[in-house]
Amino acid sequence: MITKKLQSQLEFIAEIDKLKTIIRRTKLISENRLENDAEHSWHLAIMAVTLEEYADEPVEISRVIKMLLIHDLVEIDAGDTFIYDEDMNLSKQERERQAAKRIFGLLPKDQENLFWNLWEEFEEEKTPEARFATALDRLQPIIHNYHNQGGTWKEFNITREQVEKKISKISKGSKKLWEVTEKILTESQEKGYL
Amino acid sequence: MITKKLQSQLEFIAEIDKLKTIIRRTKLISENRLENDAEHSWHLAIMAVTLEEYADEPVEISRVIKMLLIHDLVEIDAGDTFIYDEDMNLSKQERERQAAKRIFGLLPKDQENLFWNLWEEFEEEKTPEARFATALDRLQPIIHNYHNQGGTWKEFNITREQVEKKISKISKGSKKLWEVTEKILTESQEKGYL
Ligand SMILES: [Ca+2]
Repeated sequence: MITKKLQSQLEFIAEIDKLKTIIRRTKLISENRLENDAEHSWHLAIMAVTLEEYADEPVEISRVIKMLLIHDLVEIDAGDTFIYDEDMNLSKQERERQAAKRIFGLLPKDQENLFWNLWEEFEEEKTPEARFATALDRLQPIIHNYHNQGGTWKEFNITREQVEKKISKISKGSKKLWEVTEKILTESQEKGYL
Repeated sequence: MITKKLQSQLEFIAEIDKLKTIIRRTKLISENRLENDAEHSWHLAIMAVTLEEYADEPVEISRVIKMLLIHDLVEIDAGDTFIYDEDMNLSKQERERQAAKRIFGLLPKDQENLFWNLWEEFEEEKTPEARFATALDRLQPIIHNYHNQGGTWKEFNITREQVEKKISKISKGSKKLWEVTEKILTESQEKGYL
């Protein structure tokens, strides 16, 4: 017998396929097209495994990974809010809360709560896991833009000051990764990418 | 100072971006295009979190997730081997071992060993974690094909017997998910998808 619970879990799994169609502003390194949220989330999860040792505080890495896997699901309804779009960032919170309600609401109650709490924890950036996850989320497009000779920075005429303002949270999760970021930004300026 | 170790980890992270360009035979549910390996790996990792309770044996879920995140990295060099292509499946193992050597070899030694062992464990299907991960890997395209009114099955004229032969491993990881699979296949036949 297929229980209602399992049925709802399968519905959730089919629904989140849509994350593969939510397009970000960052291009792939290996192909000339924009990245989608599912690819981005996968990349971040592997980054967490690979870079765990650089978290400033001890983290439960499986919670970091889970956070990263689900952190963008709300964008299925709310869309990707470009980090440099000030207007859209004002309404972002409410749009994403509605989305979380609908999408996590497809799951059985205990899992709905689990996913909701993980997502809220990520958004609030108050735990070591959330701060490290956020650092990785900010670092990944830097790596992409660097490998793409400037990528989004050039396209939208972003300055180093604007970049630093938006990604300084990296330093809250990992001093070492912030040091790397600064190095990448300086090299990018020297090469004319930024 | 950016250590050589961190430098090699960043190189690995940039290199695996290529997984986003390795195309599978399965179409997305939500858009008329083929899925890539990064999207697939992300989807499987969330399936592991969502369906953990149906593993026949107790599993350390963070190991299942890590296995699923990295299980297809070898396809960056070896390509996706279509499950119904008998010839290519003969050379698959050697091609993938070479790929694992090169790609995991980008990492510092301890992480190279960690990733290699996880990948080998997945391939050997001898632990509860590997059996459950394999079950999810086989179940996901079934869900896609069902939602796509047949998808790959129709396109390549695959019979239910062929499908069952290739995915019967689901029953080794989860009797419950195998029961669901059989139900989906029966419904697919009734609807003319298979
Ligand atoms: Ca985002």
